Amino acid sequence: MIRISLDLMGGDFGPEVVIPGAAKALERHPDVTFLLFGQKDKCEPLLAAHPKLKQNAVFHDCEVAVAMDEKPSQALRRGRYVSSMWMAIDAVKKGEADVVVSAGNTGALMAMAKFCLRTMANIERPAIAAIWPTLAGESIVLDVGATIGADAQQLLDFAVMGGAMARALFEIEHPKIGLLNVGVEEVKGQEEVREAGRLIREAGLDTIEYCGFVEGSDLGKGTVDVVVTEGFTGNIALKTAEGTARQIAEYLRLSMSRTLLAKLGYILAKGAFDRLREKMDPRKVNGGVFLGLNGIVIKSHGGTDGEGFAAAIDVGYDMARNELTRKIESDLNRYHAQHPKNAGPEAA
Amino acid sequence: MIRISLDLMGGDFGPEVVIPGAAKALERHPDVTFLLFGQKDKCEPLLAAHPKLKQNAVFHDCEVAVAMDEKPSQALRRGRYVSSMWMAIDAVKKGEADVVVSAGNTGALMAMAKFCLRTMANIERPAIAAIWPTLAGESIVLDVGATIGADAQQLLDFAVMGGAMARALFEIEHPKIGLLNVGVEEVKGQEEVREAGRLIREAGLDTIEYCGFVEGSDLGKGTVDVVVTEGFTGNIALKTAEGTARQIAEYLRLSMSRTLLAKLGYILAKGAFDRLREKMDPRKVNGGVFLGLNGIVIKSHGGTDGEGFAAAIDVGYDMARNELTRKIESDLNRYHAQHPKNAGPEAA
Repeated sequence: MIRISLDLMGGDFGPEVVIPGAAKALERHPDVTFLLFGQKDKCEPLLAAHPKLKQNAVFHDCEVAVAMDEKPSQALRRGRYVSSMWMAIDAVKKGEADVVVSAGNTGALMAMAKFCLRTMANIERPAIAAIWPTLAGESIVLDVGATIGADAQQLLDFAVMGGAMARALFEIEHPKIGLLNVGVEEVKGQEEVREAGRLIREAGLDTIEYCGFVEGSDLGKGTVDVVVTEGFTGNIALKTAEGTARQIAEYLRLSMSRTLLAKLGYILAKGAFDRLREKMDPRKVNGGVFLGLNGIVIKSHGGTDGEGFAAAIDVGYDMARNELTRKIESDLNRYHAQHPKNAGPEAA
Repeated sequence: MIRISLDLMGGDFGPEVVIPGAAKALERHPDVTFLLFGQKDKCEPLLAAHPKLKQNAVFHDCEVAVAMDEKPSQALRRGRYVSSMWMAIDAVKKGEADVVVSAGNTGALMAMAKFCLRTMANIERPAIAAIWPTLAGESIVLDVGATIGADAQQLLDFAVMGGAMARALFEIEHPKIGLLNVGVEEVKGQEEVREAGRLIREAGLDTIEYCGFVEGSDLGKGTVDVVVTEGFTGNIALKTAEGTARQIAEYLRLSMSRTLLAKLGYILAKGAFDRLREKMDPRKVNGGVFLGLNGIVIKSHGGTDGEGFAAAIDVGYDMARNELTRKIESDLNRYHAQHPKNAGPEAA
């Protein structure tokens, strides 16, 4: 049995999307029980429409809903202990849930998750990992926005955590890891990236296979299982890829609706177009995973629909079933036992 | 008359691509004369096949061809004064050509261009500007790889130079400029980007319209005419977008060849697909522009074909015809006259 805690009030549409999404996910995973956190007056009527979900869930009334445009600091002040977001996270801390899923605002969710769950021992800053569709299947890309300006040691931590996530999600023993870098000759990229490459190589991690530098063009190819980068670049890359996909979908739509012949062709090839749309559907790979905290937190896109939210629950389900947190902890402990942190300046 | 200097030996295929590309470009721009630099034995037979080009060009024999995998420092040592790349650039310096186009290796081309042409007064480091296809038309994105880790002042210089390029290329008076940043709440991105935003706002530049921060998803939308970013992130964004476009083209190809009905639909909609392919064709927007040097240098993709190289020549033609260098110089002088650089530490 997997216990999943849900923030019903998160996202652009709150319980109207989260509750049907949970119902969908339950159909796929009948061994799930839900802990639901939300404002009673808004959630109860919607829950009534999903008797099977209601039967497999415990509902908790919460006073406060964190707004999508609320600053993290304000959300913390206003929503600590009393908001659906906080209480959903707290259920993981208390050991009542295995994973929490929220479509709420990223900054607030990260701030509350850090405050409530705390970062793991030896991890200074958490990361957000995205699941990236590739020609070879799927890859994990991290960090896509939690830490701006990670240093070499933090990039190494990301590699260890991303490797553990790949082992949990893709069920492969030695995931291939690459560091995102630029390929221009002799301008070999940021100092931190080069230093991280050296650290990872020297660490001789036996849980991953380090493959050196990869470029932006490798992301869509799926050259490696895990791409490690600092949060600023990772966030830009993620949003650039999403934007490019939307741009091409729009080109396609315009091209196909221009002439009668093209429209007819579209109708005949509709099955193929549907498969393509499915491939390109951002809802299918919805769910950023917060790594480096004492508990699994899944962030769904705020603007997603029920199908997309169900996909985020799927990710949470897989992570919990494969004991992601324990895998990360054990990999990190293993690394840090072999490489104790510098004790002082004389070690530098 | 526009005088264009070409490095015939650059690119994966050298004169076999550059010469037919030049011939194509000449058909579109009969007012061009070419200065051609290459190894005689390799170029003369190919030139013989293009009598019209030969008639409108002066050929210069060069001893050395810079290799695609040569390190910039080595290329400089081996190729200074004697390589086709150097001599093609030098023609701009001598005032014999208005612009130089090369498909040679980026690092070597930048190193030679910096050494030969020098950076403009007040510009510390040059930038590479890419022309980015968007839903709204085209944007300029810089820097895509010349400077790793630009500071706020350098980002401001990029904004001025990108603005001048937009005025020359798109013929608009006040191009819209955005700074690439991440949108995660309260994690407002790199210190340099925020500081650059402040500097640009305070500078009150009357040649551009500053629109604040944009995100990765804005690149494909064409929210602004010029997107300014530091070279590491810009390079990753460019290659991620190119990779995503290739990935979706591959999905499309697979989808359309799977069933007989889809194939039939493809045939009927072929005109539309051709238009789509044209939209997505990287050859159509081939040509990175080196900005900040005393002369215009256009970098073509190394792996392009004649059509793509001709597109790079088109870019050079537009830049030269619209007097890009003079526009940049005048915009920079205007800014720096109003904002003299700090004279010493006491000014900080």
